[in-house]
Amino acid sequence: MIYVTRRERFSAAHKLYQPKWSKEQNEAVFGKCANENWHGHNFELFVTVKGEVDEETGFVADLKDLSKVIKTYAIELLDHRNINLDVPFMAGKMASTENLAKGIWQQIEEPLAALGCQLHSVRLAETENNSVEYLGES
Amino acid sequence: MIYVTRRERFSAAHKLYQPKWSKEQNEAVFGKCANENWHGHNFELFVTVKGEVDEETGFVADLKDLSKVIKTYAIELLDHRNINLDVPFMAGKMASTENLAKGIWQQIEEPLAALGCQLHSVRLAETENNSVEYLGES
Amino acid sequence: MIYVTRRERFSAAHKLYQPKWSKEQNEAVFGKCANENWHGHNFELFVTVKGEVDEETGFVADLKDLSKVIKTYAIELLDHRNINLDVPFMAGKMASTENLAKGIWQQIEEPLAALGCQLHSVRLAETENNSVEYLGES
Amino acid sequence: MIYVTRRERFSAAHKLYQPKWSKEQNEAVFGKCANENWHGHNFELFVTVKGEVDEETGFVADLKDLSKVIKTYAIELLDHRNINLDVPFMAGKMASTENLAKGIWQQIEEPLAALGCQLHSVRLAETENNSVEYLGES
Amino acid sequence: MIYVTRRERFSAAHKLYQPKWSKEQNEAVFGKCANENWHGHNFELFVTVKGEVDEETGFVADLKDLSKVIKTYAIELLDHRNINLDVPFMAGKMASTENLAKGIWQQIEEPLAALGCQLHSVRLAETENNSVEYLGES
Amino acid sequence: MIYVTRRERFSAAHKLYQPKWSKEQNEAVFGKCANENWHGHNFELFVTVKGEVDEETGFVADLKDLSKVIKTYAIELLDHRNINLDVPFMAGKMASTENLAKGIWQQIEEPLAALGCQLHSVRLAETENNSVEYLGES
Repeated sequence: MIYVTRRERFSAAHKLYQPKWSKEQNEAVFGKCANENWHGHNFELFVTVKGEVDEETGFVADLKDLSKVIKTYAIELLDHRNINLDVPFMAGKMASTENLAKGIWQQIEEPLAALGCQLHSVRLAETENNSVEYLGES
Repeated sequence: MIYVTRRERFSAAHKLYQPKWSKEQNEAVFGKCANENWHGHNFELFVTVKGEVDEETGFVADLKDLSKVIKTYAIELLDHRNINLDVPFMAGKMASTENLAKGIWQQIEEPLAALGCQLHSVRLAETENNSVEYLGES
Repeated sequence: MIYVTRRERFSAAHKLYQPKWSKEQNEAVFGKCANENWHGHNFELFVTVKGEVDEETGFVADLKDLSKVIKTYAIELLDHRNINLDVPFMAGKMASTENLAKGIWQQIEEPLAALGCQLHSVRLAETENNSVEYLGES
Repeated sequence: MIYVTRRERFSAAHKLYQPKWSKEQNEAVFGKCANENWHGHNFELFVTVKGEVDEETGFVADLKDLSKVIKTYAIELLDHRNINLDVPFMAGKMASTENLAKGIWQQIEEPLAALGCQLHSVRLAETENNSVEYLGES
Repeated sequence: MIYVTRRERFSAAHKLYQPKWSKEQNEAVFGKCANENWHGHNFELFVTVKGEVDEETGFVADLKDLSKVIKTYAIELLDHRNINLDVPFMAGKMASTENLAKGIWQQIEEPLAALGCQLHSVRLAETENNSVEYLGES
Repeated sequence: MIYVTRRERFSAAHKLYQPKWSKEQNEAVFGKCANENWHGHNFELFVTVKGEVDEETGFVADLKDLSKVIKTYAIELLDHRNINLDVPFMAGKMASTENLAKGIWQQIEEPLAALGCQLHSVRLAETENNSVEYLGES
């Protein structure tokens, strides 16, 4: 069993804003992240799959295929987008890094399985100081 | 003569959009950077000042003061903001990294001079692949 | 279940020196790390907590609070300090990265629990080549 | 129980080429990685061992010894070498990062045990985007 | 006047081997870099152009165009190649980083000028410790 | 003319403390950097030399020789040392990064000239946010 990790990047805008709350409550909880005119980040996404090494190729997964799935089902929907407004799989959810990691997991799990890859981890770094990881645990 | 560099960071939203042009022309020139709903980045700002070393302190500049000027005159106006909408010193300009570097130079040159520091360079990285540098040359 | 990681940094002096041993034995075991006049590092601390995502905020933990706890109970006691001489929670212990990671765990576990966060990992990098991780396992 | 990680680096040439296959099939599967005249990488190797902290030294493992084992049994055989042609422990295997991580595990597991260290993980990064990890699981 | 830098990456094999010399002399001068079976690196290439900011676009250079020129005239000829055997613009030259930086300058200077960009610097990093820069000075 | 840069690293303790001043004045000017019990950093040193490319070797400078000079005349005197107490070339000077960069220049300029290398720049980073550069200008 080997774990293979591919990094992809995207740049996006978002805000942390709970529509059920007043503007004051949003600012009290989310501070500058609640700025109504948005802010943004360069996100780094690390996707890890696990599996046996194929004897003929020496691969657990072809990284070209892995990259293509991540790009098709996640990056192309997120890069140079507004996470709150433009991303169907985030509709109706708070645009937090936690929810984004879970949403990306749901987007890519099946297409990766179709490649014969078992998804192990989605790690998402929002800045050099802040990151989250989702292992599919409920 | 010694050059001293301080790094500060900010996360902001922007779009590249020339209001004189049609939506089609904007998309043709700026591609996904013209997305009307914005995108964003983690910007890294490197400010370099130059000067003689003070014999008593061993400093060209006190980095605490240098950091405070950069934060007061640039970072606080930019961090978790929308560069097109929220930043007075960028009003009426294209929100490109080039213009942003020049704008930051104009914001901090005088307050740094008041500290006895001569501004040498403003370098601004938008992603790990793209950066600009302004040396005050016209 | 999501894992959230916050990085904080501190710069400190230390030496590896076992007071029960002779100077020669210390130098034989710890080499240049035993220099009596100290040396130091820029430490990078990665604290990971785990938990459920709150539906209203989209957060496992408010990173502002997480950062504040790490700063109050660890960074402020360590930054620009001498680990052997100045840090109460390291008194009487070898100032190794291993012991420092365990000491930081003990400092922050309860205050994080008071925030509703379950501490998962303390990872501490001493240089770009050397790091340790403590998961609370005895 | 503490986990201690040491990073070492090596630069090597390799190609992905299955000798049972035609040139065309190799190019179809491995793309530019199948270039017959080789290509190469700066590999980053992260070796993690685990154990109890020794009360007298404060160490799980002496990083000087850990580094020496990794250099003797892995780096010196790989650095500035051709993985397909020059490395005895890779003979007859596809020169993939997956197989290389497993091969390094087999090289260093026993010498580390002789130091009293239990090997926990071999992580190998081929580029800033691609890495694999082997935990000794079959 | 603003300086704009674009980073691109390539992975390649090479060896340092002066054909006029004996094998012994090559090993004496180039050490392990003379290994006849090649070794390789992940090269990082930083290309800097300079110019005035266009008032309508806010750009010195369109980074998409800049990237395309660098890819077409340098990266595609170098990536996953053997610098000694596969790269026409390096034929008959020692495959040193110094010569590679000069060769890349000669490859891209004219196509960049055709874009209206004045080439300022080609910086090439071979490892995290070693890099060279060429400013077109003779 | 090509510029060649070598990075070396050292970990050291220091404090910023002007002996002519009272403890209170030291704390007012240097803040936590004046801690009498020292603190420390992982310093990154970037040394740049310039010269013509030798036609037979393809080198401006043999990086093995360049590294050896930097290690002999700077790193071995600084690594795992106390800059205020242990380093002859810093005796009687404030242990600031500025003075350290100038001191390193004076240490290595002549031995590099003896190799046929002209020293161009000494850049010294104290943290990821703070660095200085000395170009030999008076």
